[in-house]
Amino acid sequence: MDRAVRHEALEIIAGQAGKNPAALMHVAQEMVETRPQRAVALAIEILAMTPPPSIAAAAAALLKDMVPGWHFVIVRDDARNSAYDRALRRAVTPQSRVLDIGSGTGLLAMMAARAGAGEVFTCEQNAAVAAAARRVLEANGFADRIRLIGKHSSELDLDRDLGGPVDVLVSEIVSNNLIGEGCLPVMEEAARWLKPDGQMIPRAGTVRVALVWSDTAEREAMGMVEGFDLSAFNMLAAAARRYRVGDPKIDIRSSSADLMHFDFRSGGPFRAHEARAAVVADGRPANGVIQWIRLNIDDSILYENRPAPGTESCWAALFYPLPEILERRAGETVHILGTHDRVSLFIRVAAAGETGA
Amino acid sequence: MDRAVRHEALEIIAGQAGKNPAALMHVAQEMVETRPQRAVALAIEILAMTPPPSIAAAAAALLKDMVPGWHFVIVRDDARNSAYDRALRRAVTPQSRVLDIGSGTGLLAMMAARAGAGEVFTCEQNAAVAAAARRVLEANGFADRIRLIGKHSSELDLDRDLGGPVDVLVSEIVSNNLIGEGCLPVMEEAARWLKPDGQMIPRAGTVRVALVWSDTAEREAMGMVEGFDLSAFNMLAAAARRYRVGDPKIDIRSSSADLMHFDFRSGGPFRAHEARAAVVADGRPANGVIQWIRLNIDDSILYENRPAPGTESCWAALFYPLPEILERRAGETVHILGTHDRVSLFIRVAAAGETGA
Repeated sequence: MDRAVRHEALEIIAGQAGKNPAALMHVAQEMVETRPQRAVALAIEILAMTPPPSIAAAAAALLKDMVPGWHFVIVRDDARNSAYDRALRRAVTPQSRVLDIGSGTGLLAMMAARAGAGEVFTCEQNAAVAAAARRVLEANGFADRIRLIGKHSSELDLDRDLGGPVDVLVSEIVSNNLIGEGCLPVMEEAARWLKPDGQMIPRAGTVRVALVWSDTAEREAMGMVEGFDLSAFNMLAAAARRYRVGDPKIDIRSSSADLMHFDFRSGGPFRAHEARAAVVADGRPANGVIQWIRLNIDDSILYENRPAPGTESCWAALFYPLPEILERRAGETVHILGTHDRVSLFIRVAAAGETGA
Repeated sequence: MDRAVRHEALEIIAGQAGKNPAALMHVAQEMVETRPQRAVALAIEILAMTPPPSIAAAAAALLKDMVPGWHFVIVRDDARNSAYDRALRRAVTPQSRVLDIGSGTGLLAMMAARAGAGEVFTCEQNAAVAAAARRVLEANGFADRIRLIGKHSSELDLDRDLGGPVDVLVSEIVSNNLIGEGCLPVMEEAARWLKPDGQMIPRAGTVRVALVWSDTAEREAMGMVEGFDLSAFNMLAAAARRYRVGDPKIDIRSSSADLMHFDFRSGGPFRAHEARAAVVADGRPANGVIQWIRLNIDDSILYENRPAPGTESCWAALFYPLPEILERRAGETVHILGTHDRVSLFIRVAAAGETGA
C-alpha cells in the first residue's frame, strides 16, 4: 500500500478509535517506523487517558524505545553542568538571542533563560525527547520563554525558525570520541547562524590520548571455547571498548597529548584526515591507547575527563587495544595515529619508522 | 534514483574500482543500508587486499557496526556452553539431521557436528556475523560438514534449504527477559520443522521473579539538577535496568516464582497475555522486582541465572523499580503481574485487591 494512503487509513482508524486506548495503541505501533512524531503524540494521548496497565506499559515503552539511555547519565555530571552554567551566565545578556542545539531535557536552554537571555530557541530532532523536554520546560515555568523546535538543526531555517542570526549558540552533542554524535557537520552549519561577534559554547574540542595498560584488555577477544577456536570471529570485535574514567584498571603509562583539535567557532570545514600525536613512554609496557576529550566551554572554562582513579564523567574513556604489547624505554617517543571520517575515529600506534600523516 | 538502478551504477563503479580499496570502500559504504550482504562482501574483499590502515579501519568498522556486542559475552558463559554441549551429545546420533537457528560464532553447530550428527544446518540473518561464522567453521575444519545458510529462520524453505524435517532443533536466541530477541515467533514456526519425535534444545523457558531491594534503584530517575526540576523527563526512563546477576547490590527479599513458562517444543501459539506470580515476602521492605530466566535445555538439564553474589551469567537480571517502597509482613503473599506482547515484557506489582489476570 502507498505510504500516504496507509497513513490516511490509520488516521481514519484512529478517529474511529476515539477514546479506546487499546485501538489507539495499535495505530501508534503501526506508525512508529514511518511517522514517529505522530506515534509519539498518540502514545502521550493514550497515557493521558490512564488506560489499563498493560496498555499504559506499551505506550510508555513506545516512547522509551526511541530514547537513548545517556540522557539519564549526562545530567548527573555536575562538572559538565556547572561549566555550561558558568559559561552561559558570562555570555548571555538581556539582548542575547540564544540557540541551543539538541534540547535533551531542556537543561541548557533553561540555563540560558535563567541567565537572562532575551530569546531562547532549542531544537530537538527526537520526537519523544522533544515531548518530554516540553513537559520539563512547562514544569519549570519556561514554556513561554523558550521556543522548542521539533527539528534536527540541519532542518532549521535561519529566518523562519530563528528570525535571523543568534548571539549565542550552545550545544552538548559530543560523544566519547568527541565526533561520534555528528557534531562536526552540525558545527560547520551552525557557525553560519552566529552573528560575527557571536559566541559558541563549547568553543572547541580536543581528542586526547596516552599509552595505557589494562589488565582486562584481553577479555574482549575470543579464543578457545569448549575445544573450538573462535578467534576468527574477532574480525567483528569492536575497535575500542569503554571504561569509566574512574576505573582503577586504567593505568596510564605515557605523557598525554592532543591527537585532534577542532575549533568549532571557526565553522570548519572539518575534513576527514589523519593526525598524529607524540607521547613519551614511562618505561613500562603498554597494551593499548586510551582516549578521552577536552572541551573549551569558553575562552577560560575547560572540561577534561582524563582518566584517573576516583574521577567521574558522563563521557567514557575509550581503550584501543594494541596488536601486541609495546615495550619502550622511559623517555622514548611513541607516535599515536588517528583517522577520522567526520563521524568515526580510528586510533592506532604508528609502526616503527612509519611516517603517518 | 530507483534503487535497482542505483545499485547497478554502484556495481559498475565497483567494477571500475577493481583493486582500488579506497574506491571500493566508498561503494561499500553506499550499499550498507540497502544491500548489507553485498557491503559486507566488499568490506571483506577490501580487508583481504591489506589496504592502507585508514581504509582497513573503515572496512573493519563497517563489519563491526553491524554486530551486537553480546556475541562476545555469551561464549564466555561456561555453564551455558556446557549445558548445550551435554544436551547435544545426548540428543544427537549419526542419523541426526540438526538445524541450529542463529549461528553466531557457529559454536552450537560445531557442538552438534562434534557430537556426531549426520547433517548440520545453521542459519544466520546478519551478513557480517554469517561471514565471520564461516571463517570459524573453516578454521575448525567444519566447512564441509556444516551448511551455513545466510537467512533468518523465517525465510528458510523446509524442503529446499533443509531437505525436509529435522531431528534436532537447537537455538540460543533468548534475551534477558527470555522473549526480547523474538524467540516466540521463531519457536512457533520452527516446531513445525521438527519430526514428530524430534527434539528441541532448549525445550522450554521460564521467566522468574522475586521482590528485591537495590540501593542504586533511585539513581536512574532524574530529579533536581542545577536548580531545575527534570523529573518530567522520567516519562522516558527505561522500565527496567540491567544488573549483573553477581552484583552484591541485588538483595532478594521474597520467595522466587515462575511468572511465565513457554513450552517451546509445543510450538505454541504463544499469544500475548497477562500472567501473575505469587511470592512470599520475607518481612523487609522491597523497592523493585528482579527478573531472571530458567531454561530447560533438555528434559534433565536446567540453566538458571538466579541472582546471587559471586554468580555469573551472560544474561543480566532486570530490575523493575516499584513506584513506592513495598512493606509487607514476613509470610505475606505479594502478586507480581507480567504482560507480554510476544516481544516485550512488562512487570509490576499488583495493587492491593487487584485481581489481575
